[in-house]
Formats: sequence, structure tokens, C-alpha cells
Amino acid sequence: MTEGSQDVFTYLDEKEAGYLEELKGYLRIPSVSTDPEYKAEVLRCSEFLLGKLEAAGLAAEAIETDGNPLIYAEWTKAEGKPTVLFYGHYDVQPADPVEEWSSPPFEPTEEGDLLVCRGATDDKGQSFTHLKAVEALLETRGELPVNVKFLVEGEEEIGGHGIENFVIEDAGERLACDAVVVSDTSMFAPGQPALLYGLKGLAYMELKVTGPNRDLHSGTFGGAVANPGNALSQIIARLQDPKTGKILVPGFYDDVRPLESWEREEFAKLPFDEKAYRADLGVSELFGEEGYSTLERAWGRPTCDVNGIYGGYQGEGAKTVIPAWAGAKVSMRLVPDQDPGKIARLFSDYVQEIAPAGVEVEVSDLHGAEPVLIDIQGPIADAAMVAQEQTWGARPVRVREGGSIPIVATFAKVLNVPILLIGHGLPDDRLHAPNEKFNISQFYKGIRTIVRLLDEVGETA
Amino acid sequence: MTEGSQDVFTYLDEKEAGYLEELKGYLRIPSVSTDPEYKAEVLRCSEFLLGKLEAAGLAAEAIETDGNPLIYAEWTKAEGKPTVLFYGHYDVQPADPVEEWSSPPFEPTEEGDLLVCRGATDDKGQSFTHLKAVEALLETRGELPVNVKFLVEGEEEIGGHGIENFVIEDAGERLACDAVVVSDTSMFAPGQPALLYGLKGLAYMELKVTGPNRDLHSGTFGGAVANPGNALSQIIARLQDPKTGKILVPGFYDDVRPLESWEREEFAKLPFDEKAYRADLGVSELFGEEGYSTLERAWGRPTCDVNGIYGGYQGEGAKTVIPAWAGAKVSMRLVPDQDPGKIARLFSDYVQEIAPAGVEVEVSDLHGAEPVLIDIQGPIADAAMVAQEQTWGARPVRVREGGSIPIVATFAKVLNVPILLIGHGLPDDRLHAPNEKFNISQFYKGIRTIVRLLDEVGETA
Repeated sequence: MTEGSQDVFTYLDEKEAGYLEELKGYLRIPSVSTDPEYKAEVLRCSEFLLGKLEAAGLAAEAIETDGNPLIYAEWTKAEGKPTVLFYGHYDVQPADPVEEWSSPPFEPTEEGDLLVCRGATDDKGQSFTHLKAVEALLETRGELPVNVKFLVEGEEEIGGHGIENFVIEDAGERLACDAVVVSDTSMFAPGQPALLYGLKGLAYMELKVTGPNRDLHSGTFGGAVANPGNALSQIIARLQDPKTGKILVPGFYDDVRPLESWEREEFAKLPFDEKAYRADLGVSELFGEEGYSTLERAWGRPTCDVNGIYGGYQGEGAKTVIPAWAGAKVSMRLVPDQDPGKIARLFSDYVQEIAPAGVEVEVSDLHGAEPVLIDIQGPIADAAMVAQEQTWGARPVRVREGGSIPIVATFAKVLNVPILLIGHGLPDDRLHAPNEKFNISQFYKGIRTIVRLLDEVGETA
Repeated sequence: MTEGSQDVFTYLDEKEAGYLEELKGYLRIPSVSTDPEYKAEVLRCSEFLLGKLEAAGLAAEAIETDGNPLIYAEWTKAEGKPTVLFYGHYDVQPADPVEEWSSPPFEPTEEGDLLVCRGATDDKGQSFTHLKAVEALLETRGELPVNVKFLVEGEEEIGGHGIENFVIEDAGERLACDAVVVSDTSMFAPGQPALLYGLKGLAYMELKVTGPNRDLHSGTFGGAVANPGNALSQIIARLQDPKTGKILVPGFYDDVRPLESWEREEFAKLPFDEKAYRADLGVSELFGEEGYSTLERAWGRPTCDVNGIYGGYQGEGAKTVIPAWAGAKVSMRLVPDQDPGKIARLFSDYVQEIAPAGVEVEVSDLHGAEPVLIDIQGPIADAAMVAQEQTWGARPVRVREGGSIPIVATFAKVLNVPILLIGHGLPDDRLHAPNEKFNISQFYKGIRTIVRLLDEVGETA
């Protein structure tokens, strides 16, 4: 602490309720990047963020891309000190199915300690802790213990390439740093922080099975032509063995790096309560690839899931049609060293090979992301763990995650510095689902964790 | 022809364009019975029809049921003459998918000889020929060659039981007749009329596969829980063998009456142009149960088709969820002597038996219809064939149909009279599909066929 300045934590006690109100303003902007109808809202959201960064005392600017703008900001007056690059994203997932929300999806609603809103945790709420930690330090001390840079994108949820291109082009100069900090994941459990070192990749595909050139009467034409709905189901059914949970795409497992024995041992030691997990999800039993524990499957083994399926009549009652077409969105989560492009090709080839007679199948590669494993040795990672332990009173556990943060793989390759994946969320935050929430106490403690992190990293130089 | 009266066919030459305009008024009422939102339109449609029957010179009334009203009308002044009961339905299928219509689905649009509108052929246009034939005869002769009764229902497309109950209760008195005439099917080909003697039954089921209690992030939870979209596909894939086309529900074929050799011989002689059929449907190959010709499969063998499938994200782009549930509408077309109730039970039992681990499956029986084969021997059936031949210049062929007209099975059982399934439609009428049409020339000739039919049946007494 700089002598004579107000203590930053006392300052935060006074200010945090106001920060929460500011976050609500951020959340009210429906910055849905997957739907072109929300384009104007996405842009408005980027401007809101720009204003907040400037108000915090940073030099900020919008950087145009082919898609939604990147927001860049910096404060680099801590000469001789390390530089921390904060990454986040201001776009959010769609609110569908809207009818399953208990409050309007874009109206932040407090329910006790919970703040319910699309984007509350993923990633507006979490990344807002970076901004407010820096603001609180500048307000109380007039300076920061390290240099900071912010890079916040608006296409994380659609796998846009704007940020990737920018990182690759500007890594040498503008993005030079000693560590990247990302808060877009969750703690292992309430009170148990985690340092995340592995993320899955993604190959997201769309299938369209086309039969007759129009919907047909299922009486008149039933038995005469192949039904695209039946055919689509035949294809999807052959993607995964229903007994063993193995993915049946030939070559799918060829490049999978096996879980190391230290990982399996550490995961097995984690206080994972399968009964509570099942109860939370409301399922009577879990299911996945045989031979692996639930955590191993969710974190370290590749998967294949239907994300959406559609075709024919979906209304009330009975309509007797053979649909002209049926489609599905199917995505595979990948682990090192699987390559999303190669997996997409294997998938397409396999689907064409197993396509039933009498239908045409179109396979599109909607987007991909590379899996990543991060080296978490050294003083910077140690500093992060100290900061987390100070906030939560528990040593962080080392974990992997089933989600994908595409840019992390790029950071790892291009910047060649430690990437600190410090999530303030909780496992039940319902991200991508109705009633997404962020615990308000996690928001406040998240800000404190980042303050401590900057102080600790400052000490390493 | 009664001496001194105007010739009915000359009269029709003058009046038919006006009849077409009246039909358009009937079609403009969106009497969609499957969707409760259209309830008021369905009722309005029943009143429109009642008015038209009265204007034609019949005593008409609306008969209340638990659902949509039945419209009954009669003219019974031809003492000593046979009585013909006309059946039809004034309800229609939904217009979905609305965006695939080239003109508004409930605005009758002329395209050359085609009248495009939902219900144009099924069944407003076709059953309107009955009404206009009777009207033209009464206008020109002041009397009819036979007694006529009309029974027009408003729940054919949803399998409502109102008409069935009415027929069973009132068959002895009010519905007493010597023949039933139904025009809700199609000719074999342009210029080639058909007398239909077999209809399939139906068992229409709905499946709902439920997994977790909310949509989950497919990264965080992929590999941990069973995916309802994958599970639904697994179930549907096991309903039918993709190679042989056989339905795999145990016991499904137990009660199937084999096609008789005379039927297979007659069907084989029909001028069925498979190449043109494929071209019309836009498919490169046909598909169905092995060991049977296309006509045999479509007319005389039971089938199983997905009518709709749905679950998860259906919007643009990529959303990475594991859907909480996925569902499908699946219907089976049945042949004698399959029983819809028994088939529904076999289906439910089988689906529960093959349901993958980790999901719950709910199976609902949405509705059923019995298959029927009609005896087409005797003077009344001969009269119908003469009337058709006089109009079209070709002897009708004896055919079966894959569609279901549930009430026909009831008529067959309860009334014990010949049922004449005389369709004026054509095989490419797109019933139940976007851009449903009825050829205007078929409408006009359909009226003439019914006029001749009444005259011919009058001669039998």
C-alpha cells in the first residue's frame, strides 16, 4: 500500500454496492452476438464498456474488426514493473428458451445473494471485476502496482476471428505482457478456488438432411420415400455408442493425449459429491465414456453432443407430414492434441459415409476452437494462487474444464507468458442456460482477488 | 332428366365460375382444428357451410359435440329412391411452415388451372362438389333423383370423436342410407379415376425425452450426463431397420393381413411411372420395406414416420447447450387387421425398453384410426364407376391409399352399406404441405361426376 492513501479494501467496502449497480447497467444491454438482430445492441454494449474503462482512468479505444469491435485499454505508468493483460468478452449467449426464465433475461434481478441475468457470470460480471479492481486501486493510490492492459472482445460466443487476428498481429508491441488474466470460469466449489490449466477445444457442426422437395402427406407417401427425420436420427444414433459412451467417428481418438497419472490422482482427491451433483441436475444417473470418472470425462475426455435438433411439425397436436428436411447442431468438445479442423473433416466424412439411402446430407463446420493445456509453474502462477488463497482462505486446486475459451489457445501460442484462468463463478451459475446468475458475494470477492493479484504480481519484479 | 327442365350440365357451364368464387370464400376461413387459437375460425367456418347447404335447398342444422360442431343436412323427398349420405370435413391442417408458401396460405390464389390454398383439395374443395352437384340438380329440376344427407365434420384432422359418437348413436334413424360418398382422396393420375377400397389406419405418438432439469453448458457438463437429443435419436433410429425398411417394434407385423395376389397383380398393371414420381418429389431414390413395390408399400404395408422432431437450440449460429429435453412426433400407418390401440401399446413398451440410460422417456398416444378394406361389389359401386367413366372417359381403377379417413372405418362397421371413395384430387395436390392446390378443372368435373353418380344411383331402385 502506498503510504497515506486510503486502504483499497476499506474503499471497496464503501463502493461495491455502487459497482453492482454499474454492472446491472452493463447487463441490461442484450449483446447477443449469435443473432444478427442484436447487432446494434452489441455495438452499444462495446461503447458502454469503453466509457467505463475511461472513467476508471485508463486510455481506452475501440478497435475495428471484420465483426464486432475489440475494446482495448491500458495504464502503463508502472515503470519496471510487470504487465498484466486482462482478457474478457462483452458478448453473451442468446436467452432462449426465454419462457423458462423466472425474470426477464436482460433485466438484472436480485434474488438474495444471486444476481440473475444473461451474462451475469459469462462474462460481463466476471470480467467487470478486473475493471473495478483497477479502478479501486487508482482511486485509492493514484497508481497501480503493475502495468495493465485490457482486451475485451465481442465475439467469444460465436468464435469470431477478430481478436485472434489482432493478437497475432499486435502481440509483439501493444500486447506485450508478463501474464494474461482471464475470469471466465468457475471455482471448484463455494469457498474452494481453482487455478485452471486445461480447456477443451470445440468442433461445432450443423447437419441438414434433405429428402423430398416439399413436406409430404405421411399417409400418401409413407413407405415410398426415406423420411429425413428418421434418417437424421439414424445418423446421430451412430455418432456415439449408447452403451460405452465412445464416439464412433473413425479416427476421433487418434490424437487424444491420455490423462496423466498425477491428474487422475489429483482429480480423484477433489471433494466431488456425485450425489449432490446428480440432485442439482435432477438426473437419476450420470452417463459418459466408460472407464473414466465423471470429472475425468467432463475435463479430460472428448465428447459429442446434440445442441439442437429440428424438423417437421413442432406445434400442438398431430400433423401427419413427412418433413422435407430435418437438421441438427452437433458439437464435439476436444482435448489436446485433437485438431478442430481435422475432427470436423473426420466427422463430415463419417456422416456422409453412414447417410441412409434416399436422402442428401449437408454438413457445415460452424466453428472450431483448439484445446489447450497451460504450464502453471513459476512466480506469476504462484502469485495468483497466493491472491486466491488470501481471499478465500483455501489453497486453489488445479483443475481442467470442459468449456472452450478459444482465445486462450492463441494467447498460449503467441504471447508465451503464463495465462491465469481465475474464475470467480460457481459451478451452478447456469451459464448458457435460463436463469444464469452470479453470486453478488462472488462478484465482491472477485474484485478483491484481482486487487491482491496485482499487488502480488507487482512483488515479483 | 325431368322433362322441360334445363339441362344440368348446360346449367353448370354457366354457374361453375360462380361456384369457384363461393369455394374461395369457404377457403378464406382458416379452420385449423389442431390449434386451439383458431377455434373461433373453425366455428365461423361451420356456420358458413350451414348457410351454403340451406341456400342450396337443404334442411340443415349444426349438431353440438364435445368439440367442433357437426353440420348435418338433408333432402329426403324422393320417395322410394335410395338415399346417399355425403361425408366431408370443413377443418384443415395448419399452414406451417408458412414461409414456404408462394402465396398467403389462406388466400385462395389462382395459378392457371390451379387454385392454391390450404384446404383447396383437403377437404373443402372436394366436398364442396357434393353440395354444388345437389344444388345444380335442385335448381334445374326442382328435385333430386335420390334422397341425400350430408354429414360434414370439423375434427377430421385431429381425430376428434364427435362424429364417431354421433354416427354410432344416430345410425339407425337419421343416418339410414344406401351408400356413403366420400371425396377426400385423389384420382390415380390425371384423366384416370379411381375407386378406392382400402385406407390405412393410424397410431400417432409423441415422445418426450427428458434429461437434466435445465439446459446445460455443453462444455461444463458434456461427458457427464446423457444428452436427451442424442438419446431421442437413439430411440428413433431403433424404430426402423435402415437397410430393410422393416419396423422393429416387436409384434408390429403380427396382425398384418398380407396383400392378396389379385391386388399385387392389379397394382403391378397400373401405369405407375416411378421416374416421374421421383422427379416430382425431387429424390434420387425411393426407400421402403424390402420385398414390396412402391405402390404396395404406400397402399398395403404399414409404415413408421417421424412427423416432427425438436429440442435445444434451433436459431442461427452456434449455441453450446445440452438441451434439458427433446421430443418427436412419430406416427405409424396401419393396415388391416392391425389395431391402433394395440400398436400404440407395443410402441410404448418398446420405446421404454430401448430408452438409453440417464434419461426419462414419456410416450403419449395422440390419436388413432382403424384401417379399413371396403367391399366394392354390387349395383351401387357399379353406378359410381359408370359415373366416373362418363366424366373422365376412362374406367376407374381399383386402388388402396396410404392415408387415413378415420370415420370411414366407423361407417363401414355401423352403417353396413357401400362406401364410395371417389376422389377428384390429383396425386400432386400437396395436401398437408405448403402450396396445397386443387385443379379448377378437377373441381368442375368433380361436380359433374357427383351429378352423374346421383342419377346412376337413382336408376338402381
